[in-house]
Amino acid sequence: MLRTERTISIEFGHCDPTGIVYNPNYFIWFDVCVHALLTQGGLPLKSLIAEFGIDGLPVVEYKTRFLAPARWGDEIVIKTGVTNLRRCAFDLQHQVLNAGVVTAECMETRVCTALDPQHGRVKACALPAKLVELLSG
Amino acid sequence: MLRTERTISIEFGHCDPTGIVYNPNYFIWFDVCVHALLTQGGLPLKSLIAEFGIDGLPVVEYKTRFLAPARWGDEIVIKTGVTNLRRCAFDLQHQVLNAGVVTAECMETRVCTALDPQHGRVKACALPAKLVELLSG
Amino acid sequence: MLRTERTISIEFGHCDPTGIVYNPNYFIWFDVCVHALLTQGGLPLKSLIAEFGIDGLPVVEYKTRFLAPARWGDEIVIKTGVTNLRRCAFDLQHQVLNAGVVTAECMETRVCTALDPQHGRVKACALPAKLVELLSG
Amino acid sequence: MLRTERTISIEFGHCDPTGIVYNPNYFIWFDVCVHALLTQGGLPLKSLIAEFGIDGLPVVEYKTRFLAPARWGDEIVIKTGVTNLRRCAFDLQHQVLNAGVVTAECMETRVCTALDPQHGRVKACALPAKLVELLSG
Repeated sequence: MLRTERTISIEFGHCDPTGIVYNPNYFIWFDVCVHALLTQGGLPLKSLIAEFGIDGLPVVEYKTRFLAPARWGDEIVIKTGVTNLRRCAFDLQHQVLNAGVVTAECMETRVCTALDPQHGRVKACALPAKLVELLSG
Repeated sequence: MLRTERTISIEFGHCDPTGIVYNPNYFIWFDVCVHALLTQGGLPLKSLIAEFGIDGLPVVEYKTRFLAPARWGDEIVIKTGVTNLRRCAFDLQHQVLNAGVVTAECMETRVCTALDPQHGRVKACALPAKLVELLSG
Repeated sequence: MLRTERTISIEFGHCDPTGIVYNPNYFIWFDVCVHALLTQGGLPLKSLIAEFGIDGLPVVEYKTRFLAPARWGDEIVIKTGVTNLRRCAFDLQHQVLNAGVVTAECMETRVCTALDPQHGRVKACALPAKLVELLSG
Repeated sequence: MLRTERTISIEFGHCDPTGIVYNPNYFIWFDVCVHALLTQGGLPLKSLIAEFGIDGLPVVEYKTRFLAPARWGDEIVIKTGVTNLRRCAFDLQHQVLNAGVVTAECMETRVCTALDPQHGRVKACALPAKLVELLSG
């Protein structure tokens, strides 16, 4: 299935008073990786919204383990891949490597949503076929 | 065990182009709640570091489910409580309520770390007794 | 003219490895104060967009001086007021106080924008009369 | 004098509900550029602190003008250069280009600080000679 990889320099501003990455940043980077996956496959979220009338691909679940901290000046690599496809949702795995060692792991689930005009609410909808094809890699 | 609660106004700057909270913000707020717990108990992390020579209380695990999005202008309540204490670690639960409905849940584990002078590395250490007492509520 | 005030607790996650507020946070807080001004006057940006067809109130200028740092655990007060109104723009002043002492100051200019349908571009437009009235306090 | 340049992809998470960059992000990027300048010259802030006993290089002034917004999917270039050196402080200029057009400009002043042991306070100190040499390019 579709995979991507990003290298991130740990900047001064990513770190907290104890000198390690303030961990909400990891979730920003995981999000950047998911967008990179879609963009690299030619279907950035913006196009998915414009072409298929979906409302978004919100995260519904994260399971994250931090094994070792990253520090100011480190360079980490995040490897992201699709691990499972369902009718309205898909799963991803992120692996964070620091100097070649896995220092964090995250399982993420995103759901495809669209506006239900009858009830005026956003609800889960089937993944567009073109997105399924892309995510299948 | 020790519990706290925070009300957060969803600001313009918390939201993404689809108009809902950009979800890394939740992890910032969970962190704020953990610090509020410690401070309210009279042991802010700063004092824990100064008094007991610990290095920090880094997060080692998050299990998070997002059930419904929060939007610009909403006011959410986060209820945080300690759920379990171990020798070197403790678990917390965060519940996010929007207009009285649970819209996100997170189980968090933090570990107490100290510098191991022999190996020049940070490693898990026993929770200071005063912290155990505080977290037990 | 219209004025507002916010108290902000300096959290662990606001601070950088040197232990002081990472200063991009001030611009988040200034933005929060501007939205608070509008909301307190009964015209949150969301309503301005919905009722008057404006596109936004983007910042076009900031002049900021930081006189002293704020630290983890401090509680600061930001006082924000409108200082000047023009046809398409308005100026604001933010004053940051820490323990009663002014530690930062910012002059901000925002412009009112709308989509120009003829050229398909966003451009400056006159402030809606109701907004002028509100900002005049 | 010393100059550097960074290319930044405008991500989904950088943008606000009106679809443009939430502008506190620019100050994060300006900070990244200043650290890049120092690192590229072989004197990352971390080394400056360790080698010369300084406390930090806090920003004391920003004068920023935003001429046009950047949007999700844009790629911007930030050109940063030192423009002036004084005994305890230095000035920088940041220019933001989007598709070759200048869309934001910032003049920044940083001061070198050290702990004054006599009064237990941080205060301005002379720039280390090695830093002056580096910034002079």
